[in-house]
Amino acid sequence: MTSKKSYTLGELSSILDLELKGNADTKIFGIGTLKNAIAGEISFLSNMSYVDQLVDTSASAVILSHKFSKSCKVAQLLSNAPYVAFAKATALFAFTPKISAGVAPSAVVDPTAQLATGVRVGENVVIEAGVTVGANTTIGANSYVGENSTIGADCAISPGVTLYHTVKIGDKVTIHSASVIGADGFGFAFDGKKSIKIHQLGGVVIGNNVDIGAGTTIDRGALEDTIIGDGVKIDNQVQIGHNCIVGDHSIICGCAALAGSVTIGKYCIMGGGSGAVGHITIADKTQVSAMSLVSKSITEPAMYSSGTGHMKTSDWKRAIVRFQQLDSIAKRVKQLEQNTTGKS
Amino acid sequence: MTSKKSYTLGELSSILDLELKGNADTKIFGIGTLKNAIAGEISFLSNMSYVDQLVDTSASAVILSHKFSKSCKVAQLLSNAPYVAFAKATALFAFTPKISAGVAPSAVVDPTAQLATGVRVGENVVIEAGVTVGANTTIGANSYVGENSTIGADCAISPGVTLYHTVKIGDKVTIHSASVIGADGFGFAFDGKKSIKIHQLGGVVIGNNVDIGAGTTIDRGALEDTIIGDGVKIDNQVQIGHNCIVGDHSIICGCAALAGSVTIGKYCIMGGGSGAVGHITIADKTQVSAMSLVSKSITEPAMYSSGTGHMKTSDWKRAIVRFQQLDSIAKRVKQLEQNTTGKS
Amino acid sequence: MTSKKSYTLGELSSILDLELKGNADTKIFGIGTLKNAIAGEISFLSNMSYVDQLVDTSASAVILSHKFSKSCKVAQLLSNAPYVAFAKATALFAFTPKISAGVAPSAVVDPTAQLATGVRVGENVVIEAGVTVGANTTIGANSYVGENSTIGADCAISPGVTLYHTVKIGDKVTIHSASVIGADGFGFAFDGKKSIKIHQLGGVVIGNNVDIGAGTTIDRGALEDTIIGDGVKIDNQVQIGHNCIVGDHSIICGCAALAGSVTIGKYCIMGGGSGAVGHITIADKTQVSAMSLVSKSITEPAMYSSGTGHMKTSDWKRAIVRFQQLDSIAKRVKQLEQNTTGKS
Repeated sequence: MTSKKSYTLGELSSILDLELKGNADTKIFGIGTLKNAIAGEISFLSNMSYVDQLVDTSASAVILSHKFSKSCKVAQLLSNAPYVAFAKATALFAFTPKISAGVAPSAVVDPTAQLATGVRVGENVVIEAGVTVGANTTIGANSYVGENSTIGADCAISPGVTLYHTVKIGDKVTIHSASVIGADGFGFAFDGKKSIKIHQLGGVVIGNNVDIGAGTTIDRGALEDTIIGDGVKIDNQVQIGHNCIVGDHSIICGCAALAGSVTIGKYCIMGGGSGAVGHITIADKTQVSAMSLVSKSITEPAMYSSGTGHMKTSDWKRAIVRFQQLDSIAKRVKQLEQNTTGKS
Repeated sequence: MTSKKSYTLGELSSILDLELKGNADTKIFGIGTLKNAIAGEISFLSNMSYVDQLVDTSASAVILSHKFSKSCKVAQLLSNAPYVAFAKATALFAFTPKISAGVAPSAVVDPTAQLATGVRVGENVVIEAGVTVGANTTIGANSYVGENSTIGADCAISPGVTLYHTVKIGDKVTIHSASVIGADGFGFAFDGKKSIKIHQLGGVVIGNNVDIGAGTTIDRGALEDTIIGDGVKIDNQVQIGHNCIVGDHSIICGCAALAGSVTIGKYCIMGGGSGAVGHITIADKTQVSAMSLVSKSITEPAMYSSGTGHMKTSDWKRAIVRFQQLDSIAKRVKQLEQNTTGKS
Repeated sequence: MTSKKSYTLGELSSILDLELKGNADTKIFGIGTLKNAIAGEISFLSNMSYVDQLVDTSASAVILSHKFSKSCKVAQLLSNAPYVAFAKATALFAFTPKISAGVAPSAVVDPTAQLATGVRVGENVVIEAGVTVGANTTIGANSYVGENSTIGADCAISPGVTLYHTVKIGDKVTIHSASVIGADGFGFAFDGKKSIKIHQLGGVVIGNNVDIGAGTTIDRGALEDTIIGDGVKIDNQVQIGHNCIVGDHSIICGCAALAGSVTIGKYCIMGGGSGAVGHITIADKTQVSAMSLVSKSITEPAMYSSGTGHMKTSDWKRAIVRFQQLDSIAKRVKQLEQNTTGKS
């Protein structure tokens, strides 16, 4: 992807703090994969399975580790962690939305709301009473911020986000469109005939450096707060129930769902479409694979899975018939073993 | 959670219709768990696993049943159904959004729309022609109500909700942000080369006392209506396909999905992330556990599950290899049994 | 469903290009199922399981194939593909939203945006700099179109849709409410302590004749584009990760999720709630059943499934204990076979 921004290799070497081999004056206009980069773009090598593409790349420069330096025919930025260096390079070419400084004419901001220096509020944004917004935060068009919520500094709220009342957002938080923070947790008491709503009196507290994708929902707590730790990365269409606690730096992939009162440790990874039933605890550094359900607490960090793997449906239909007979099959094997042993 | 509202224990006893043991003048400012409540808060005991926390609670009062009255050292509100009583108490401390009476200046309301007494319409709301809204209903900022839709009385529509045309919403319905009611059902006829859209001519009818979470979608019917019964509680990110019928007082937990033309009985519970394939019927009082798929009709009320339970991925990989061999394994067991019997 | 539009059978015969048996002057006001259609409605027979309802229908006419003509007592429109003919008929009775021509007074359209003839822009819509919108496209209220995005002709964007910057939408595309196109893909590089954001520099390219449901998210690519082919139909709450490529005319049912860099062929069907892990390829014409996970590439077109089928939870609990012993059970069967063979 070639952007409108450009840097010389010398500038990139300096900004990214990487050793340059090559012409410092070469201009770089974008970033591409080894396979598809064009002249004027920089590429990177971090995954060994792409090493064969190094020799044929049309990129003008490559970020890579010292050990592949010899195999590279073009300019190089040398890094011990080329994937991290690549990530930092993407920030240099990223799109910056042109929201004007200040409050857009059509936004409706309650006079008691406090907006710090450099805050940009998009068209049709509604900010209720008692809200505070930290310096240089952007709130995209058509978003809503409920009473007494606080948003930290340097946040980027995309268009069409809804924050309910008394939600606390830290600094450097990104929230994408159609996400909803602080809607009611799902709590009812059944009186024998009907469900009586348990009003959700807690809030949501989101730490610093958190990213939240599009269409994600994080419910407010019943009595205490739902808590998202620092550095947590949450993808699209994730559902986080009331009173969950997500530990620092954990990653929750798309469409994963946590029922109420789930506590997830630090540095965990919940795979895409995975789930956790309510009121369980998951140990630090646990990983859960895609579409797996965690149905009880996990105390030992490891990777966990559930499910069967995919098969042709014609074969699978036979397998699931047998799955439903499994207890009987296991007992018959045991009987056979006893018969055999009895005979020996 | 301590709120700005307060009640004396005497008032709570009267409002909740519960016997008070203790000082009627004690002021209560909020509700907390037995473990974390502070002075000035009321707590509750409904789950026996928390009975040990009763003796140490700092709450100023506890809602509990008569049989635990003796173990409680603080003021008490006695109830035969303490969880229901707690639910009712939460309503007293709930947040009430301060939307001004009437129609906000930036809202666009078609002159043919009829708004009853006490309706509050938030900023940037768009209400199309022929809409009717019942008394005391609130429509949050940035929401949209399509042509000829009707919303009953005492409803709370959160900011950023979309109701399409000819959607009928009953009384006392709550809909949270980013939910969409009445988008087209997913229907196409394949002509051998491409999919031809089946325009969705039905509507959506939602009963009274229904709660709908955030990011939930309920599609309009193809020819007839999609129907949600009275007292149904629907969590976040639920998908309800066209022409589904959900019976009164059923509960659909977060991320559950019903394909088209699913009929669910009364008092059912669909667990979080569960699903039902199209054109099936599920009996009254059926329960489906988290992330289970209902792949054919259920006629006998019970709890149903699918899936394998989670395992360490290293063990799981071996198990799924065997799962895929299950039909063969079952046949070999049968052969062994025949061999054994033959020899006996 | 009876609508405000009406056609004579003669007109329907002509518009749909179907042979009429019956009175050309009969007026038709809507479409219904064989079972529930009333006088003045037309019905259709395409599924043999409903053939018994033909004789008792109250419909004024039926679309059906020649071979059932004799069994039909009312007027008929004869078709070799009655379901396709029915689909085309629904378009005649479909609701058309009454958005006024031109740009609504409260919409905010950047002066550099180019709107072709017949474009209708709803209330509170925000259109950023450099956007182009093709002829006769409708953009519903409260939607957002980011910088330099392009939308083709004859598109219908529902209220409350968010398109990020540099998203390319083809002609005749429908997008339902709360959907988000072009939010950041989920990419981070872990530096040993924290996740460093990989800014997403690619875009999203959507072909012609694509339908996208409500609450669906399609992420922008990391370096290259995410691509949705012509004629693709996507249901509600679908998640499509960065750099996915979905082939022409494929169908993705509700709540399905594709991780990053998944390539799906042409004419595939991903069932409701199904998923695919990242960086895999799925062959043309592959079908994946509801809630199945595709965990590696599929090269042979067929229907694929995973999961266990639902059971009573009481039985299921025994089955999953055995599932977790499966590798051991399989080994014991092998041992038994060796014992038996050894003895023979």
